Amino acid sequence: MERIFIQEVAPRDGLQNEDAFIPTPKKIELINQLSNAGVDKMEVTSFVSPKAVPNLRDAEEVMKMIKRNTDVTYTALIPNLKGAKRAVSCNVDEVNLLVSASNTHNLKNVGRSTEETFEGFRETISFLEDKRVLINGSIGTSFGCPFEGSIPERRVLSLIEKYRELGANGITLADTTGMATPKQVYELCKKVISRFHDLDVTLHFHNTRGMGLANVIEGIRAGVTRFDASLGGVGGCPFAPGATGNICTEDLVHMLQFMDYELNANLDKLLDASHYLGKLLSHDLPGQVAKAGKITDLHDASNF
Amino acid sequence: MERIFIQEVAPRDGLQNEDAFIPTPKKIELINQLSNAGVDKMEVTSFVSPKAVPNLRDAEEVMKMIKRNTDVTYTALIPNLKGAKRAVSCNVDEVNLLVSASNTHNLKNVGRSTEETFEGFRETISFLEDKRVLINGSIGTSFGCPFEGSIPERRVLSLIEKYRELGANGITLADTTGMATPKQVYELCKKVISRFHDLDVTLHFHNTRGMGLANVIEGIRAGVTRFDASLGGVGGCPFAPGATGNICTEDLVHMLQFMDYELNANLDKLLDASHYLGKLLSHDLPGQVAKAGKITDLHDASNF
Repeated sequence: MERIFIQEVAPRDGLQNEDAFIPTPKKIELINQLSNAGVDKMEVTSFVSPKAVPNLRDAEEVMKMIKRNTDVTYTALIPNLKGAKRAVSCNVDEVNLLVSASNTHNLKNVGRSTEETFEGFRETISFLEDKRVLINGSIGTSFGCPFEGSIPERRVLSLIEKYRELGANGITLADTTGMATPKQVYELCKKVISRFHDLDVTLHFHNTRGMGLANVIEGIRAGVTRFDASLGGVGGCPFAPGATGNICTEDLVHMLQFMDYELNANLDKLLDASHYLGKLLSHDLPGQVAKAGKITDLHDASNF
Repeated sequence: MERIFIQEVAPRDGLQNEDAFIPTPKKIELINQLSNAGVDKMEVTSFVSPKAVPNLRDAEEVMKMIKRNTDVTYTALIPNLKGAKRAVSCNVDEVNLLVSASNTHNLKNVGRSTEETFEGFRETISFLEDKRVLINGSIGTSFGCPFEGSIPERRVLSLIEKYRELGANGITLADTTGMATPKQVYELCKKVISRFHDLDVTLHFHNTRGMGLANVIEGIRAGVTRFDASLGGVGGCPFAPGATGNICTEDLVHMLQFMDYELNANLDKLLDASHYLGKLLSHDLPGQVAKAGKITDLHDASNF
């Protein structure tokens, strides 16, 4: 039984893209439910400018008021030194840096080139040196860019190398707009796992074109054990209208549990949290197990 | 480059579950578009009682009026001798028999036990003996039953053996209510492929719990090359309310094409057909590529 780690991103990647701001107390309640459901890591919020991402304008309040579960690593996205200082003041366990493998996407996302963003990380990392904070480096558009198209594997490998040189403990390969195919995931991850065995490697998939869980299967086959997912499958994709967001946490846990992987996450608690999230948002969630039930939820034949 | 065969089931398994009857000329137009899009096989209709399945009451008319493409195998579901006679009178290439591995499910579906259904097949097969018609044997609930739960592998293997004894050319393992996990698919298919190399083996998945394309990946890894799928992902599941139906043809073809498998199906034509189907039905379709676009559909960064 291989251990797989479930890393929840709904509070950040999910809610960031919602039309509506979720009131802070309800956001905290959601995060507490997720902590209690046994996710291994949770991206709680993002310490960006409240103007850039108004939905996460309550970052400090949320981070300080949630109930911490010692089995959960609490992480937050930070764009720069200012974000790092805010995150450290809230006592995060980990900060998550983000750069796009695609220069065009990075320019669109943060107004700077990929190289400039990396340069900016140096002062952030320097500040963090004597703080007890883990550093994760995320690489957006690792499997393709909606503007540039294919991203060469060597580009991704060299960015991982840069993150390692900066002192990152882990890296995340993010399929920002759901372009990865299972074959591509297997091939790239095989190389990453063999070259960077000192780093924790996370896969972050969006289910934009329905390949999300198939990509997880091939990631595991290549040796990856850490997966980001979003409760209810929330989180949009600005370049793929009408499509779903991140892969859905409870659908992922459901699949892996019934494939006999070892998980800390509790499926029933996740389903409860997903129903709670469904009530907070004003639309149907893409997650499917919350609607269809678990494969072990049997029906009484006499009712049909 | 391995050749994978795409078998379309929207005209039967998809439309059967729709609330609305699609007018016959539009159904024929849809089927003609699918023939032109290069699917390898198509389940055109079902020769059942019009009372049981009113949506398919135009079976003869549809089967006789479609434009045949010689590269496509046209198949139809038949429940009994009467259905076989109707199908043969319409010159089908193949008839598809169906029985559930789960006795409870079979009783619910056709009011007879699995054994009684098999007994009934004998006169059907006997009638077909001197007709130039291929015979496919489908096994519903092969990966689990919503009433009984787990289905032992030996049960499925013995039903395949029975179909072979009856003279079937191929068999279909159907995951009727979307209960299969990728691990289970790999394990069962490995056994089936090694024992029944004289039979064409098809996998028929529903995406009820999001595992559909992941199951395809593991089916291919076990050696299966034939997959049923439904345009737009149409087709409900009476025991899983709110969940999607069959795996979506264009999403399947999109994934396999960009994994470099050899396919006869043309993705752009399938997407056109899916948009046509979307206009015929009064609701959103579950298929995702039709909404998000192909991974090669790039965007102009200056528009964002």
